[in-house]
Amino acid sequence: MAKILRVDIGTESVAFEEVPDKYKFARGRWLTSSLVADEVDPTCHPLGPGNKLVFSPGIVTGTTAPTSARISVGGKSPLTGGIKESNAGAKFATMQARLGIAAIIVQGQPKDSKQYVLAVDKNGARLVAEDGLRGLGTYATTDALIAKYGKVGVCCIGPAGEMRMAMAGICFNDLEDRASRFSGRGGLGAVMGAKGLKAIVVNSRGAPAVPIVDKELFEAGRAKLTKAIRSHDITKPKGGLNTYGTAVLLNILNEAGALPTRNFSRGRFEKAADVAGEAIFEGNKARLGKEVYNHACSPGCIIQCSNTWYAPDGSEMVSCIEYETVWALGPDCEIGDLDVIGRLTWLCNDIGLDTIEAGGTLAVAMEGGVIPFGDKKGAVKLMEEVGKGTPLGHIIGAGAAVTGRVFGVVRVPTVKGQHMPAYEPRVVKGIGVTYATTPMGADHTAGYTIAPEILGVSGKVDSFDVNKAELSRNFQTTTAFIDSSGHCLFIAFPILDFPEGFQGVIDECNGLLGTRWTAEDIGRIGADILARERAFNKTAGFTNADDRLPEFMKYEPLPPHNEVWNVSDAELDAVHGDAAS
Amino acid sequence: MAKILRVDIGTESVAFEEVPDKYKFARGRWLTSSLVADEVDPTCHPLGPGNKLVFSPGIVTGTTAPTSARISVGGKSPLTGGIKESNAGAKFATMQARLGIAAIIVQGQPKDSKQYVLAVDKNGARLVAEDGLRGLGTYATTDALIAKYGKVGVCCIGPAGEMRMAMAGICFNDLEDRASRFSGRGGLGAVMGAKGLKAIVVNSRGAPAVPIVDKELFEAGRAKLTKAIRSHDITKPKGGLNTYGTAVLLNILNEAGALPTRNFSRGRFEKAADVAGEAIFEGNKARLGKEVYNHACSPGCIIQCSNTWYAPDGSEMVSCIEYETVWALGPDCEIGDLDVIGRLTWLCNDIGLDTIEAGGTLAVAMEGGVIPFGDKKGAVKLMEEVGKGTPLGHIIGAGAAVTGRVFGVVRVPTVKGQHMPAYEPRVVKGIGVTYATTPMGADHTAGYTIAPEILGVSGKVDSFDVNKAELSRNFQTTTAFIDSSGHCLFIAFPILDFPEGFQGVIDECNGLLGTRWTAEDIGRIGADILARERAFNKTAGFTNADDRLPEFMKYEPLPPHNEVWNVSDAELDAVHGDAAS
Repeated sequence: MAKILRVDIGTESVAFEEVPDKYKFARGRWLTSSLVADEVDPTCHPLGPGNKLVFSPGIVTGTTAPTSARISVGGKSPLTGGIKESNAGAKFATMQARLGIAAIIVQGQPKDSKQYVLAVDKNGARLVAEDGLRGLGTYATTDALIAKYGKVGVCCIGPAGEMRMAMAGICFNDLEDRASRFSGRGGLGAVMGAKGLKAIVVNSRGAPAVPIVDKELFEAGRAKLTKAIRSHDITKPKGGLNTYGTAVLLNILNEAGALPTRNFSRGRFEKAADVAGEAIFEGNKARLGKEVYNHACSPGCIIQCSNTWYAPDGSEMVSCIEYETVWALGPDCEIGDLDVIGRLTWLCNDIGLDTIEAGGTLAVAMEGGVIPFGDKKGAVKLMEEVGKGTPLGHIIGAGAAVTGRVFGVVRVPTVKGQHMPAYEPRVVKGIGVTYATTPMGADHTAGYTIAPEILGVSGKVDSFDVNKAELSRNFQTTTAFIDSSGHCLFIAFPILDFPEGFQGVIDECNGLLGTRWTAEDIGRIGADILARERAFNKTAGFTNADDRLPEFMKYEPLPPHNEVWNVSDAELDAVHGDAAS
Repeated sequence: MAKILRVDIGTESVAFEEVPDKYKFARGRWLTSSLVADEVDPTCHPLGPGNKLVFSPGIVTGTTAPTSARISVGGKSPLTGGIKESNAGAKFATMQARLGIAAIIVQGQPKDSKQYVLAVDKNGARLVAEDGLRGLGTYATTDALIAKYGKVGVCCIGPAGEMRMAMAGICFNDLEDRASRFSGRGGLGAVMGAKGLKAIVVNSRGAPAVPIVDKELFEAGRAKLTKAIRSHDITKPKGGLNTYGTAVLLNILNEAGALPTRNFSRGRFEKAADVAGEAIFEGNKARLGKEVYNHACSPGCIIQCSNTWYAPDGSEMVSCIEYETVWALGPDCEIGDLDVIGRLTWLCNDIGLDTIEAGGTLAVAMEGGVIPFGDKKGAVKLMEEVGKGTPLGHIIGAGAAVTGRVFGVVRVPTVKGQHMPAYEPRVVKGIGVTYATTPMGADHTAGYTIAPEILGVSGKVDSFDVNKAELSRNFQTTTAFIDSSGHCLFIAFPILDFPEGFQGVIDECNGLLGTRWTAEDIGRIGADILARERAFNKTAGFTNADDRLPEFMKYEPLPPHNEVWNVSDAELDAVHGDAAS
C-alpha cells in the first residue's frame, strides 16, 4: 500500500500517512496538483510558511513501462503566483516509486536559517540538518551527496534556490549522476530554498517491485507503446530525437519563421543553422572523430534524446542542451555560438535555473539596455552574477516579468509572469492559445500543438488558423493525463500517430491499477486535473484577463510573416469554458 | 466654455476639444478617472502606447475657495496595474483652471527617444522637442523652465520618471518655485517618462477668471468653509498642521503603537520623538533662533501645513517633509535622524520619487539584507543609486513589491503592489480596510479613517474594532468627491466636525456650476467615481483576492499590542458590495 511522506520543516518532523481513498489512483501531476489544490491556501505567499512542495512519480513510474521515469513537482509558484506543476525524467522518480511513496509533501518553514537534507530509503525518512552544502552548485552538491549517501537519486537546488530566486528550478541527477535534469519551470527551487531544504536523496535498494494488479494487461500495453515509440520517425532509435536531440526543431522553426529572435522581435535568426541539432551532431563528430547518438536521461527510456555538447578538446562541456535551452540562450539573445550557449547552459544547471526563463530574461535585460544583444561575454558575466547574487544577478534571477518591470521594458514575452518558450505565437496560433490558457503560465509542454501545427504529427494543421481553442484544449487535457501517467511527453508523437500506442498507455495504467479506463476516462481525468488547477488560480485571483498574451504582440507585426497576435479573446475563453470571471 | 487639451506624442500634435456633455460637471479625480476608464484599455501595458495621462484641476480650483488648488493626475499605474489617481496642491492647478482647460490628455508614445516639453498659455499649446533637460533632477528642471518660460506652473519628472521607474512621481513647483509638490503615488511619473514628456509649463497670464454661475451662493459657501477651517484645532492658524506640519502625527501614532517600524515588524519606534513634528519645530527654532510656522504649498491655502527643515547653518535643507515622508525614510528604516531624513527627502524630490514608496522600499531592501536597518549612510547611498540608475537603483526604483520579489522577501507591506503608508493596519483596522479595498492600492488618502480612529475627529471610533466596512466606504466615497472638488483633503477635519463647513463645500460647487446638489448627491457622485475605478480594475484582471492585506499580517502579531490582521474577508468585500468576482 502506497504511502504519503509528510515532512514538516518547522517541527523538523517526518511522518508516513496512508494515501486517502480520493487519491487512490492519482499520481504524478494528478496527485501533485490535487494535493496543492486541497492543502495550500491559493492566496498564501509562495515563499511563506503556507506553501507546500509535493513530489510524486507517475502511475507506471518504477515499472518496465518505456520512458516513464517522470517525477512531478507541485506547489504555488513564486514566478506566476498560481499553481505549478513541473516534471522531469530522473532515476529519483523510479526510486521514489519503488519505495511506494506516492507523494512527498514538504511543508512549514525553518525557524532559523538552518539547511536540511531529507534522506529516504526502505527503512524510512530522516530530516538531517546539514550546513556543508550551503551555496554549492548543483554539480558539487550532487557529487557530495552521492559520496555520502551512495547510489541515490538526488534532488537538489543550487544557489538560486537558496537565494529564493523565482527562476530557480529543482535539479535531479541523470543516469551518469550529472546534475542535469530539471523540474525547471515556475521557480519551485525557490520554494524549496525558502523551506531550507537543500536536497532530497532517495535510495530504493531492497525495495520491492511496484505492484501491478493485472500483469498480462500491463505487459500487453507496454509492448504496444514500445512498438509505437520504436516505429515513429521522431522517437525511434537513430530517429530525429535520438540523433539530433530536441534541438532538431531549431531549423524547422526557423524555416517556419516562428523562431523567436532578439527578444521576440523577429521570427528568423540568420545563425540558426549554426546552433541547430544538426550542428550539435556534426560539431561533436568533428571534435570527437566519431558519431555520437544521444543517451537516456532516466531509467527505461527508449527514446534517448538527451544530448551532450563536447568542448574543442573532446571533453564534455555540458549535458543536456535542449531545443528550448539553445534557443533561449542563443537566438533569443542573438547569440549564434554553441560554445557560448554550452557555457551558459552549464552555468544555468550549476546555479540551478530554468534555462527558458534564464535565457528569456537575458534577452529582456538586453532589451532594457543592460548589455547589447549578441554580447557573448556580457551574457556569461550576467549569468555568473546570478550565481553570485549581485544586485543585477538578483534582478535576472527574479525572471523576465520582474526584470521587465525593473528596467521599464514593454516587450516582455510572458504569460502569468512566466516567459514564453521557443515558439512564436504570432505565427503558430495554437501554441499561443496554450501559452495564454494553461494554468501554468506560458508553457509549451502544457499543450504541445506544435506537433500538428509544425510537425504534421496526427495530420497537419495550418499554424496561422486562429480557431485553435479545441485543438489546444484537447492537447492540454491529454497532456495532463500523460503528466500523471509517468510517461515523458515525447510519447505523444507516436501515440498521436499510432492509435495502438495510445491504447498501450491505457492498458499499462489499467493493468497496473486494476482499472478499466477508456479513452474517454483519460479525457475526463485530464479535464478534472485542469479544473482543479484553474480553481486554485481563480481563488488566487486569476481571471480571464490573465489568459492573454502580452499586449505588444497585438500591435507589433513579426517579420518575416509580419503577423500579429489575432486570436480573439472569445476563442481563448472558449478553451476552458468555465470562464474564470 | 471649458476645453480638453489633447496631446498626441506619437504625431506631435496638440488639439483643443469641447468637453463632452457627460463630463460637464466632472473635474479633478472625477474627470481623470472617467477619462481613463472611458479611453484607456484596462489591459494595456502602463508604459506602452495605449496608456494615457490625464491632468485635471478641481471644480472650484482657480477661484477664491480656500485651499482648493489641487491638480488631479490619472492614468493606468505601472506600480499597481490598475487605475490611478494622485493629486497635489500646486499653482499649476490654478493656472490650468484659469486657462479653462478641464483636462490635459497626453497619449501615444514617441517614435524615437525624443523628449518634449508641453507649453500652454492663453494663446494655445505647443509641444516642443527639448533635449537639454534630459537626466536633470526636478530642482534643476524647474529652475531651467522658469528661466525660459517665466512665472509658470511647472509639472515635470526627474530621472526616475525618465528611467520609467514605477515609484516615479510627477513634481509640481510650489509658491516659492521649489520642486516640492508631488502627485507621488502609483508611478505616474514613469508613464510621463514613457511618453517622452519631461515637463508641462502652464502660464495663465491674461486668462479670465474661472466662471461662476451663482456668485452669491459661491461666496456664502466659501465663507462657511473658511470659517470652519479657521476654527478647527488641526487646521487653524498656528494650529496642529500650521505649527508642526503633518508630522504632528508621529508622536500620536507612536503612542498608539501604530507607527510601523523596521519594515512593519513593530508598532513603536524608540526614537519617534526625535523625528516628530515637534522636533522639527523645535529643531528649526534652535537653528534659526526663532519660531517658524509653516507655509502654503499652493495659492489660496489657509491651512498652510507645508514645512521646511533647516540645516545646522540655518540654510534651507528641504521642503517639505510630510508625516508619511518622515516615517517612511525614518522609523520604517529604523532611522531616527532628521538630517538624514531631510537629505533623503531632498534626494527623493530631486530624483522624482514617491517618498512613501521610496522609504518603504528601502525598508524592504533592508529586510532582504541589502543594507542593515538603521544604516544612514547606506540609505543615502542607495537613494543616490536610484538617481544614477545603477542595477540596485533600478530595483529600488521599481518599488517595494518588485524589490521583495527580487530579494525573496516575504514581509512586504503592499496592497495591489503599492506600499502601505504610515499607519499600521493591525492596530488601526479601518485604515487597513481602506488599504485593502480602495482601487488605488494601499493609500491612506483614499479613505482616511485615521480621523475618527486615532484623532477622534467626528467622534472617536475604537481602532481595534474589526467592523469597519461602512466607515471606510463612507470615507472613500466622500474622499472621491473632495478629490474632485479641488480642495485639499485636509478640509476633511473641519467639515467632519462642523456640518456648516461641509455645506460650504456643497454651496461652493453649486454656486460655481449652477447645480443643486445635496449631501446625498455628493455621496452618489463619490460612489459613481469609485464604481468607475473598480470597473476599470476588474477588466484589468483584479478580483476580491486583490482587496486583501498581505498574508504575513495575519500570522505575525505586531508589538506592542501583539495584534494580527483579523478583519474578515466578508467585511472587506462588504465595502463595495459590487463584489469584483
